[in-house]
Amino acid sequence: MTRLVLKFGGTSVANLDRIRASALHVKREVDAGHEVAVVVSAMAGKTNELVAWCRDASPLHDAREYDAVVASGEQVTAGLMALTLQHMGINARSWQGWQVPILTSDQHGSARVEALNGQHLIARLKERREVAVIAGFQGLHKETGRITTLGRGGSDTSAVVIAAAIGAERCDIYTDVDGVYTTDPRVVAKARRMERVAFEEMLEMASLGAKVLQVRSVEAAMVHKVKVFVRSSFDDPVASASSGTLICAEEDIMEQQVVTGIAFSRDEAQITLRGVVDKPGVAAAIFGPLADAAINVDMIIQVVSDDTTTTDMTFTVPTADFERAKTILESAKSAIVYATLHGTNDVVKVSAIGIGMRSHAGVAARAFRALADKGINIRAITTSEIKFSVLIDAAYTELAVRTLHTLYGLDQA
Amino acid sequence: MTRLVLKFGGTSVANLDRIRASALHVKREVDAGHEVAVVVSAMAGKTNELVAWCRDASPLHDAREYDAVVASGEQVTAGLMALTLQHMGINARSWQGWQVPILTSDQHGSARVEALNGQHLIARLKERREVAVIAGFQGLHKETGRITTLGRGGSDTSAVVIAAAIGAERCDIYTDVDGVYTTDPRVVAKARRMERVAFEEMLEMASLGAKVLQVRSVEAAMVHKVKVFVRSSFDDPVASASSGTLICAEEDIMEQQVVTGIAFSRDEAQITLRGVVDKPGVAAAIFGPLADAAINVDMIIQVVSDDTTTTDMTFTVPTADFERAKTILESAKSAIVYATLHGTNDVVKVSAIGIGMRSHAGVAARAFRALADKGINIRAITTSEIKFSVLIDAAYTELAVRTLHTLYGLDQA
Repeated sequence: MTRLVLKFGGTSVANLDRIRASALHVKREVDAGHEVAVVVSAMAGKTNELVAWCRDASPLHDAREYDAVVASGEQVTAGLMALTLQHMGINARSWQGWQVPILTSDQHGSARVEALNGQHLIARLKERREVAVIAGFQGLHKETGRITTLGRGGSDTSAVVIAAAIGAERCDIYTDVDGVYTTDPRVVAKARRMERVAFEEMLEMASLGAKVLQVRSVEAAMVHKVKVFVRSSFDDPVASASSGTLICAEEDIMEQQVVTGIAFSRDEAQITLRGVVDKPGVAAAIFGPLADAAINVDMIIQVVSDDTTTTDMTFTVPTADFERAKTILESAKSAIVYATLHGTNDVVKVSAIGIGMRSHAGVAARAFRALADKGINIRAITTSEIKFSVLIDAAYTELAVRTLHTLYGLDQA
Repeated sequence: MTRLVLKFGGTSVANLDRIRASALHVKREVDAGHEVAVVVSAMAGKTNELVAWCRDASPLHDAREYDAVVASGEQVTAGLMALTLQHMGINARSWQGWQVPILTSDQHGSARVEALNGQHLIARLKERREVAVIAGFQGLHKETGRITTLGRGGSDTSAVVIAAAIGAERCDIYTDVDGVYTTDPRVVAKARRMERVAFEEMLEMASLGAKVLQVRSVEAAMVHKVKVFVRSSFDDPVASASSGTLICAEEDIMEQQVVTGIAFSRDEAQITLRGVVDKPGVAAAIFGPLADAAINVDMIIQVVSDDTTTTDMTFTVPTADFERAKTILESAKSAIVYATLHGTNDVVKVSAIGIGMRSHAGVAARAFRALADKGINIRAITTSEIKFSVLIDAAYTELAVRTLHTLYGLDQA
């Protein structure tokens, strides 16, 4: 007997037929004698509809009301999944976030889970053999009694923290792809599904552009040591063997490759300030106002000009903040003191991730050479212990991703 | 300064434009300095969609899950109405049933409100000048912590019990018609909007087929002496004068007519058992099994045949229970002992309602004569202190309603 959490994303509960197909996966685990908690997203498209209504009602909307409205999507699927399971003869009941309760901070729209006592759920799983169907994405702020939501993709995080709270052996994330790939298969036909990937690697991949899992859910899985298995809800639900990707601790992976995956993100915009007067505190003068505006600056390079009294500063910001960042920097021009501001949206950040980089030198250097051989100009570089990223012209995205995928031996046989 | 409850039905919150139009009515009352609580239904059509999904998931659905799913409709409109009011510069927040909390019985799908402490709402209305936007139709069963719903049209009941709990001066029900009419204006062009109608009369009218208000909401208004004003949300929201119908205590109505309204219901089916062996306990043998099956028997007539050992029994049941009632009576044939069973759906119950009947004799007799003059055959009659009803062939519905409407002087000048 194993205790499991099964999480179904929006496409896996998009309509009653999909809910029934997903319920068959739950039934298989219940029939195998397991104790099962289910976490559901809203029906595909539903959250977008609710968000659009909120924007229509009030463009600068009160995040507390926004949360009350959008949380209804998961409430509906939780009830429908419970009904569907009951109709299959399985004892089941739905739980909304406030009923569990999943207690969170009061950062409405992107709340963090603060407390989740799993004892009540465990007691019902054990004594009643009752499947708990829990609405994902949502929680309750205890002091105000208001509904909170965890932000886009928050149902993954719900699933992981519930798995941790009830001591589940594994958290199965059912989605519309059959696992995590070495890179986006739409870009590289030879991309391979990984059998296993370490928490740290998955965290970098999610942060650097892989869209399979929400970054915070991977963080939570790493902190609570919850094994996460990503698989497809479109698989045959009665087949005993299943393919997918297990996200687990480094020590659970027998053979670690140097580079395990290539990620890329088009959500980058580059800003370059030329002729910045190089005086103490200039970095603070540039990045302080951006931080105050909650704009996340990522890659930063400083190039000293021939004229040693000035310098050039290049850095990236999220595409969504590009225009705002430029406006802020233009209005701070007299405080910073610079000659010109250039910016472009037409860049992409390509990253290689692998725990093996820790013990192998020269991994990034090989990439720089391979990209140069293809005539790809590198605009900026950042590195960390287990990944490196290069910023290049967007036109070269596919070429760069394929080059690195082949270079590190990731191509399918 | 007055404290008011404003309730908006499904067509009054059908989309964002309608929500904005309804919010202008709220704004008018707030601008006039009143303390305002708002109760909202789900967007028109939304509840039907959710109900259909529940049926699709599980035809014999768990009413607790059904309630969790369908209650989401009002949750969405409450949030959107709060956002819309905020956008107009009005301080507002949404409340779901469990947040107030509106405590109910555990009869899921048709729960009764058991407790509602209005002190918390009153404090916020007064101290924060904050409009409370409350999701109608729903409550919480305290012991189980599950969401309940109050049954179709339950938002009217929500509005009335909230008005009672916060000591509101009036409960305004905004709908898509501008009040309560002497009869259905689609049937009688000369129907008049009533300025005032007594609780008891409205209760009879709602029970006998008028669809403006849920019966239970009128009961609650009568018990708690909450004045209810029915008006249209399609009216000009800034006009100071407004037309509608006030439902109030009998003593608040200056000039009471003998008959105030004519109602009719097509939701009747007639069953006749002929040649019933007339022995003690035969009524129990007939109506016991129907009661056990929760089938509501309305009009009952017993006609003794020439042959005094047998009798004929005629009665009505709701159309929805017609087939089930026939099946039950056929299978109980040997216990009851009767010759034949006849049934028809093709009947209508026409009723005249008026508190004045208490003090005027012969009111019903005039109707029987007028109907006979038009060649309308009466199949059954029931009377009570302030109403009488006749069961007739459905083909004569309009003729009968118009005849009685004219007879009692209700036609518009």
